[in-house]
Amino acid sequence: MTVTGAGARAERAYRRLGVAERRAQLISTALGLFAHRAPEDVSLDDVAAAAGVSRPLVYRYFPGGKPQLYEAALRSAADDLLLCFAEPETGPLTVRLAAALDRYLAFVDGHDAGFTALLQGGSVVETSRTCAIVDGVRRAAAAQILRHLAVPDPGPRLRMMVRTWIAAVEAASLIRLDEPERPPREELRDWLVDHFVALLTATAAGDPQTGRVARAALALERPDGRAAALARRAAPLLADAQHLFPPPPPPRPSTAP
Amino acid sequence: MTVTGAGARAERAYRRLGVAERRAQLISTALGLFAHRAPEDVSLDDVAAAAGVSRPLVYRYFPGGKPQLYEAALRSAADDLLLCFAEPETGPLTVRLAAALDRYLAFVDGHDAGFTALLQGGSVVETSRTCAIVDGVRRAAAAQILRHLAVPDPGPRLRMMVRTWIAAVEAASLIRLDEPERPPREELRDWLVDHFVALLTATAAGDPQTGRVARAALALERPDGRAAALARRAAPLLADAQHLFPPPPPPRPSTAP
Repeated sequence: MTVTGAGARAERAYRRLGVAERRAQLISTALGLFAHRAPEDVSLDDVAAAAGVSRPLVYRYFPGGKPQLYEAALRSAADDLLLCFAEPETGPLTVRLAAALDRYLAFVDGHDAGFTALLQGGSVVETSRTCAIVDGVRRAAAAQILRHLAVPDPGPRLRMMVRTWIAAVEAASLIRLDEPERPPREELRDWLVDHFVALLTATAAGDPQTGRVARAALALERPDGRAAALARRAAPLLADAQHLFPPPPPPRPSTAP
Repeated sequence: MTVTGAGARAERAYRRLGVAERRAQLISTALGLFAHRAPEDVSLDDVAAAAGVSRPLVYRYFPGGKPQLYEAALRSAADDLLLCFAEPETGPLTVRLAAALDRYLAFVDGHDAGFTALLQGGSVVETSRTCAIVDGVRRAAAAQILRHLAVPDPGPRLRMMVRTWIAAVEAASLIRLDEPERPPREELRDWLVDHFVALLTATAAGDPQTGRVARAALALERPDGRAAALARRAAPLLADAQHLFPPPPPPRPSTAP
């Protein structure tokens, strides 16, 4: 295979694609490269070569060069990422969270080096605009979770709780990528769901609105589900800490006659 | 007061201070400015004026200009921040965490705009070196907490838990600064301590090492302390979720004859 051959193929490809398709192809190619390498290790020549087009053609679509292409790729990744959080609003909350986390963690694994470079900061292509895109994803994810919690007007404690958990998910994903032996995704997913349940319970203890949300959420949990498994596994620890607990409340009277 | 007067005073000050003192003074002045303004809103002229010296003098100490001065100020702030986490390793863990958080949150309030600009990313002065300084603080804080948990060889789950909580503390501090009505520091401190206790309990449920740590930590907690208050306030919620809990374990046999 010769350079001329590749050039001729590129030329044919160029003729075949319309403007929108070509733009989409360049963004998708760039995203593929930025996903697994640090931005400084990807050049416009790499993108041009991977897309089978010439460097000037890439510049025709992205006159701002690499920063502009990176931002476009990031916007495209952000759109994909938002789809991870789309989940029907039925069934136990822990099942919904687990499904969204499965998609999110698969996304992270599919964009490991790019995700790390993007979120660790200090990258050569990072700007206030790229940071705004990332922050937009965080806020959209928080809004999505609040929708699942069915709170039309969430107060500051509940909003703080959800946004903090999202930051924890992000941090945990980064930490996992950094581990010499990357733990299985399912393990991190289950722990992050437990984290949510624990944080919801702790926040509910001090905030009436979160208390109502937590009650409604726990009522939907099934005895064979994740929240029950957590309660079961935490019970011995809580039993050993009886000096911190008041005597257990009497069982609620049954509504049956 | 005239410019000439200020210049003369600056000249006198310049003569009076040695190299190390002058450097420290410039860093401290820069930190004062960077603390409450975004880095792009602080010029070298601002630093020179605030320190009562000439711009060329600032350049003599920091030939790299603003980025170099910013990095030096950041290193100085990082040293201050690390002192926040220094706490004697005695007493209930929640008391130690609360004391460290009090200092940390006071630090954040004392460096609000700078803290936000630094951690939100995309700042003009952000580099891989400034990010490494920030990451160094996070790692040092994690090591400090693991020391308090008295684990000589922490496994991946426990390390993940501690690092994730630190990320949550950082995120919650940023979110608080961003709130139209900034909640009191004590409120956030208490919630973050609760968050730690809840997360420790949830992680202990799935990891034997964390289980031992959590047992030891809860055993040190006092009935009038933070963990007991959390247990008391969460009890009604847990009582309402009895469908998730197994029957309570029988009380442990007393060791008394």
